[in-house]
Amino acid sequence: MTHLLPGETLEDLDRNGLKIIQKEKGFRFGVDAVLLSDFAKVKKRDHVMDLCTGTGIIPILLFGKTEAEEIMGLEIQDEFVQMAKRSLALNEIEKKVRILHGDLKDIDLLKGLPKFNVVTVNPPYKKENSGIINEKDALTIARHEVSLNLEDVVRAAQLILKDNGRFYMIHRPERLADIMTLLRKYKIEPKRIRMVYPNTKKPPTMVLVEGLRGGGEFLKVEAPLFVYDDEGNYSDEIRRIYGDDRR
Amino acid sequence: MTHLLPGETLEDLDRNGLKIIQKEKGFRFGVDAVLLSDFAKVKKRDHVMDLCTGTGIIPILLFGKTEAEEIMGLEIQDEFVQMAKRSLALNEIEKKVRILHGDLKDIDLLKGLPKFNVVTVNPPYKKENSGIINEKDALTIARHEVSLNLEDVVRAAQLILKDNGRFYMIHRPERLADIMTLLRKYKIEPKRIRMVYPNTKKPPTMVLVEGLRGGGEFLKVEAPLFVYDDEGNYSDEIRRIYGDDRR
Repeated sequence: MTHLLPGETLEDLDRNGLKIIQKEKGFRFGVDAVLLSDFAKVKKRDHVMDLCTGTGIIPILLFGKTEAEEIMGLEIQDEFVQMAKRSLALNEIEKKVRILHGDLKDIDLLKGLPKFNVVTVNPPYKKENSGIINEKDALTIARHEVSLNLEDVVRAAQLILKDNGRFYMIHRPERLADIMTLLRKYKIEPKRIRMVYPNTKKPPTMVLVEGLRGGGEFLKVEAPLFVYDDEGNYSDEIRRIYGDDRR
Repeated sequence: MTHLLPGETLEDLDRNGLKIIQKEKGFRFGVDAVLLSDFAKVKKRDHVMDLCTGTGIIPILLFGKTEAEEIMGLEIQDEFVQMAKRSLALNEIEKKVRILHGDLKDIDLLKGLPKFNVVTVNPPYKKENSGIINEKDALTIARHEVSLNLEDVVRAAQLILKDNGRFYMIHRPERLADIMTLLRKYKIEPKRIRMVYPNTKKPPTMVLVEGLRGGGEFLKVEAPLFVYDDEGNYSDEIRRIYGDDRR
């Protein structure tokens, strides 16, 4: 395996034979990436940009389930960019999926890009200056708002989305007021949200959000998504999301 | 029964023997009023204002379950004001609960009131100019934003709340983005929300919201509230809310 470096592992995504390279210890994709790529509506011939793409998990999952014309991922950390590129090579999907090394706060970079029909993002969840952080650590950068905050993400999405382009994000429920106010500030109207609850008894741990660039005001809140059923097994829907590669 | 007029009925609230007068045909209180009065946290000696109080259902329910010092209701329609006052007389609770006839858009009226620890409101749900409306019909005024809109409600709450006073509202989930942005605009920080789902499979029909006047940013999204269980019976929690008059 020339594609793997020491300390890396190869994970089978159970979707058209696609695989992804990850660190054994470090950022590994979670249920959030899988839920977001299921929640996002990507149509035939759409051009898609995944911000904060990390190992490229969302572009690879979207490649597996959609007929997008092109899927691009933007990532600030060179280590992740290289890992993602090796995953694309390994899957032989470099023609449709590309990884761009850059900072979403780089307005000139964003303005130089073509416009996209869809922007997805699974951003760092933790607020700037919350918890113990180490600014140089790759895992910290992937999880905390060290190098960017929520407003940077929404501003970037606005800049690269076409009119009526769709924005998809997964985030923590406690940021819902921030999300709503920032989306409106940047003219991406919140159109659809879905709360993700561990089970029927617990507070949600994630929220899925769809916004429409230049859309009118009407929000659809969807049926709840439960990760586990009352017996503690994965819910039917989670099993569908993980197992079904058609859409 | 001298308290009842033709076409009116008396409903037992199953809470300390409290009763309410309602129209046989017309606005009758629903599960939303009951959920809101359960969701609201009212402490001993609090002063409470219920905006858009209608028949006075929320002040009467709050009287039954809290140790508030004073509960006031503001209502624009004289017919409801009179009905609410007769309900208070019937329950012999006029010393603690008072109904004020007035318009929450009347800034001078609001500025003349004392400040409150808690403001509750179950406002008209339907947007201005949506659906078939008849501006003179009492039921229409109670259900549609004919005489006020959501911004009027939030502005009124801001004017009469003390610093760190609590705001409680029940509304439609599709207005969540409006609610969040308006609360922030009027410096009432969204602190707690709870989605109310008919059951585990359906989209929510209501959302409960708590805001804190002058509060810092952190939103807690609570466990889901289901009206019915999977067998179609009222859920345990709904039965607790309807049946338990302690808190």
